[in-house]
This record gives sequence, C-alpha cells and structure tokens, in this order.
Amino acid sequence: MTDVNHRILLHARPTWMPEPGHFNADSEPIRPPGEGEVLLQTIYLSIDPAMRSWMSEDAGYHSTVPLGSVMRGGGIARVLESRAEDFAPGELVQARLGWQTHPTLPAKFLQRVDVARGDALAWIGPLGLSGVTAYFGMREIGAVKPGDRVLVSGAAGGVGQIAAQIARIEGCRVVGIAGGAEKCRWLAEDLRLDAVVDYKAEPDLTAAIGRTCPDGVDLYFDNVGGETLDAALAHLRMDGRVALCGRISQVTSNEPYRIGNLSRLSARCGRMQGFQVFRYHDRYEEARVWLATQHRTGRLRQRLHILDGLQHAPGALGMLFRGENFGKLIIQVSNPAM
Amino acid sequence: MTDVNHRILLHARPTWMPEPGHFNADSEPIRPPGEGEVLLQTIYLSIDPAMRSWMSEDAGYHSTVPLGSVMRGGGIARVLESRAEDFAPGELVQARLGWQTHPTLPAKFLQRVDVARGDALAWIGPLGLSGVTAYFGMREIGAVKPGDRVLVSGAAGGVGQIAAQIARIEGCRVVGIAGGAEKCRWLAEDLRLDAVVDYKAEPDLTAAIGRTCPDGVDLYFDNVGGETLDAALAHLRMDGRVALCGRISQVTSNEPYRIGNLSRLSARCGRMQGFQVFRYHDRYEEARVWLATQHRTGRLRQRLHILDGLQHAPGALGMLFRGENFGKLIIQVSNPAM
Repeated sequence: MTDVNHRILLHARPTWMPEPGHFNADSEPIRPPGEGEVLLQTIYLSIDPAMRSWMSEDAGYHSTVPLGSVMRGGGIARVLESRAEDFAPGELVQARLGWQTHPTLPAKFLQRVDVARGDALAWIGPLGLSGVTAYFGMREIGAVKPGDRVLVSGAAGGVGQIAAQIARIEGCRVVGIAGGAEKCRWLAEDLRLDAVVDYKAEPDLTAAIGRTCPDGVDLYFDNVGGETLDAALAHLRMDGRVALCGRISQVTSNEPYRIGNLSRLSARCGRMQGFQVFRYHDRYEEARVWLATQHRTGRLRQRLHILDGLQHAPGALGMLFRGENFGKLIIQVSNPAM
Repeated sequence: MTDVNHRILLHARPTWMPEPGHFNADSEPIRPPGEGEVLLQTIYLSIDPAMRSWMSEDAGYHSTVPLGSVMRGGGIARVLESRAEDFAPGELVQARLGWQTHPTLPAKFLQRVDVARGDALAWIGPLGLSGVTAYFGMREIGAVKPGDRVLVSGAAGGVGQIAAQIARIEGCRVVGIAGGAEKCRWLAEDLRLDAVVDYKAEPDLTAAIGRTCPDGVDLYFDNVGGETLDAALAHLRMDGRVALCGRISQVTSNEPYRIGNLSRLSARCGRMQGFQVFRYHDRYEEARVWLATQHRTGRLRQRLHILDGLQHAPGALGMLFRGENFGKLIIQVSNPAM
C-alpha cells in the first residue's frame, strides 16, 4: 500500500470558465487516523456544476474553497483503516472526500454505502446527490403528476437524465433538450423519451420546443437557464411549474441573459422556483428508498462519463460547461474492484 | 324615474394606452326584466388594470369584449325592479354590470351585498375583488407569515393598499413603493408602513429598495412588473416569495422589459408565482369574512379615488397606467344615498 496522499489544490479563482490552470497538484504523507477518524481510499469523485461556484468568492449557499486547500468534491471511498467504531476496513462510504486519493476524515462526515441498494456507481449517480436532486426537484418543486407534459433541459447530464426518467416513471409525456445527435439519440432510443430537441441543431429553440411540445409544458425542469429557460417559458401551460435546478449556460457567461417571457408566468398562473438539494437533507433516505427501488427494477438507468485518474479532475469541470460530457461525469481515482 | 339606459361601448382596440377614443357612448330604452331577471341602477363601477386586456384581442384568462358591445366592468348596483325571487327592490348587489346606468341582468349573475359586513364602498374595495385579490395574493401565493420583510409595489393602488395592510395586520415589516410624495406620505403616515420608496424620485430603484429593506425581502407583492420586479429580485432573501399580481408597467410598453436578476431566485431558493383571483372563486366567502372583520374593526382602511359620472369612465382607465389615481379608482354613476 502506498503511503502518499495525492491531492489537487485550488490555485486560482476562475473569472469565467474553470480551467486546469486554476488547480495544482501536490502530495503529502498519508495522515493516520486519530480517535474517531477514518482513513479512506477514494474510488470515484463526482464532477458537478456547483463546483464552479465553490471556486469563486461568492459560493452562494456554500462556503468558498480557500486558495491553497484541497478542492472540495464528493464521492465514494473505501475504508482502509478505522478508529471509529461505526466503520470497518473494506466498507464503502460516501462523503465530501475532496480531490485526493487518501483522505483522513472524521467518521461523522461519512455516510455508509448500503451495497444492498446499489453498487458504488449507483451511489454516485441515482442514489447520490444527482438522483436526490432530481427527485426533490421533480417531485417537490415541480410537483410532477401523471399526465404532465414535462420538458427537461440538460437531459443527458447527471441530474437531467434522472429527472427525465422520474417523469416517465410517474406517467408523464417527457421531452428532453440536449446538445448533439448522439445524446439525442440516446435519450430517444435508450431512455425512450417522447421527443428530443438538439439545441445545437436548432436555429430557433422556441419553435423547436413548440414543435416537440405541441400542447405546451406543464413542468419545465431547468438545468440550463438563460435563453433555454426563456424559450420554455413561452410554452408554459396554465398552472405550469418551472423547477430552477441549474443554470449552467449562465455560470460562465459574462453578461447575464435577460428573460423576456415572464409575462407568461403571470398569464398562466405559473410558478417558478429555485432550490438547493441540501435543504432536503433530512429526507434523503425517503428519496433513496424510491430511487433504489426504481434502479433495482431497471426502470431507472444511468449513463456515466468516466475519466480514469485523479489527474483528469482539473480539466473535467470545464467539460460540463462546454457540454462535452455525455452522461454523469465522474473521475475514477482507484480501482473499485480492489 | 328615467326610462333611458346610458351606455359606454367599446369602439376600438387599444394598441398601447387605453384612451377615451376607444369608446363611444349611446343610450337605449331601459329593458324591463324578464322572468328571473333584475333591473338595476348602477351606483359604483370599479376601474381596474385588467380591463385593458379585456379590450384587446388577447384577453388572457377572460374573453375579449366584442367591438360595439357595452364595456365590461364590475360594480355595485341597487335593485330597481325584480322578477327573481331572491332579490327585492332597494337591495344592493355586486355584479359585472358593464359600463351602463341601468343594466337588466339574470339574477344568477348577481351577488347580494351584505350591508352588515360593510357599506357599498367597502364592497367595491376591501370586500370587493381588490380586497379578495390582495387576500389570496398575500396569503396563498405569498404565504405571508409574521415577521416577514414585505415589499409591495403600487402600494397606493386598489390592490396594493390592501395587500400592504394585510401584511401589517399579520405582523410583518412592510415597505411600500408608490409614485409621488403625496402617495408616499399617505402610506407612511396614514397606513403607517415601515418605509416607503417614491419611485419617481429615485434615480436607482435597486439602491432605494436596498436602503429601505436593509435585511432584504421575504415577500414581494408585485403590481408593477418590469424594472421594479427586477430591482426587488435583487434583494430577495432565502426562501423569498414573489407574488405576481399585476404588471401595470408592462401592459402599455411596446418592448417588454427583460429581467436580469433571475439568478437570485435560484440562489435564494425563491419562488415566483402568478395568479388570477378568479381561480379562488369558491373561497371568496372565506376572504370576505376575514377582510370584513379587519375593516369593521378599523385595522383595514381604504382610500378611494372617485370620479363622478359615467362619462368619466373612458378617460379613467388610462389614469391607472399613468399612475394618476391616488387610491382605488372608481366611477360614481348614481347617488348611493337615493
């Protein structure tokens, strides 16, 4: 076993796109666990749009990652050594591991991965924060109900693919928006969405949504913001809901897009609501029971985009904002089978 | 008693501001009531922003008023002659009377005015649609709760003045936005709001809201839309609500204002919701019991702007959009004491 913890530190704050140059790598000796602590080996790290805001001075709901510290990030790890009675070597845990190969963390920050519910990859996707986010966004904020005409942007992404499938499981007509023919084919053929919009191939997004949602939209699950949100608003039905989950098109834009179709929200008695999954923390168990049930029975599938090696983490974040990931983006840091 | 019904008909559809030239006047013999009908004498007519949309081809939730018909409008009337067993001469009713002095209407379209709850003027304001709109907008859409920091635009208008007072009654800190020193003085001194913003005197509305709402806004009750909505969004607190009641600044604008501060809604887990009071029709009684209680005990006051004579109706509507009314705007069509 190695005695080195390889780490990636935040080196500079992005003003626009997150780039590899905003990070640097180092290594330190593994720190043996103290009383109540656990030494871990990172297996997977999740790459999520929110990380861009953690890198900036205004981290929103979360605190800013200090320059020179390990970049914050969640994932799945194996217990190597434990001085906490709740955890034993070989067990899998979920935690904010940070971008490092061998974190030593207090046991209270760890959550056991119940492998009866799903394997490590399921726990980073449908049973992880992506799944839980989609669950509360669709069900609580979106108040999805059978028969709803649902539109999901970023539908091939980590949260979007699960949101779209939740709506299908609930008995909705579901249209997905994604960029590129390959993603759109997967949404239509593998996830069996009712229609897809390839935003990269559409000169007029509003017209494309109108064509694929001829009766309008009861629920728009927004991962994108900006122009896509505006186009979706134009098709909102009476009592329509907009769940503002992400705004990935806006995070790296210099000039915020200005929304022109808000009058539709008034005229259609619509509701538009932002949310943070962390506010539902005490209900994650409920979400995981539901998601694990759907996943185990094959109704909920997952497509991952896996990069092999911690060294890919600094370049991975920018892929999200350029739409280069096809599926939920994760870093495989060590071999899950070992 | 006269035998003539004076009427004001819709003559042309406005493309921008509603003007007297969009109407014309005529008169016809009073039509005696048939079986189940009631002949009325109009006392008060309410002038409301929604009437501008009824005049246009796209009337939204309501049907368009056909050219050449009596302009639609609600108000209070006295029963002159009844062939319906539920109504007797001398009683007061509330109805969509139309802009006419002596409507003859089916009894099923009339609602009796309970004078024990409030006089005719109370029934056109706090107990009428303005009051009921403010009630559901504040309580259902805004989910007002004690201690909320509440901001109300159009706070000296028909709905706004009641919305602001409801929030005060519920135990909120309330800031009102209105145009002109006279309205602002009335809001501060008579309605005792905690602070006021005179939007006509403020070069920077966002800064003015920041100054008067130093801890931000939990609930913004919007009667105005556009730039004011955008400025209010900039101060939204965590879990803040925006009740989209009206958008009077936008109805007559040629180019819709584009909202730039939507990211605040996401970041603050905020909710923005449009509504139409008519959706709450089966709960009007609940609202009126509450509003009548507040009004009778003096906690809920009303300021009216009364124009004397039906001939003023065609010019009145434009006053709303130019902010020339100070209080709820009504037309006195006949003497209420007779």
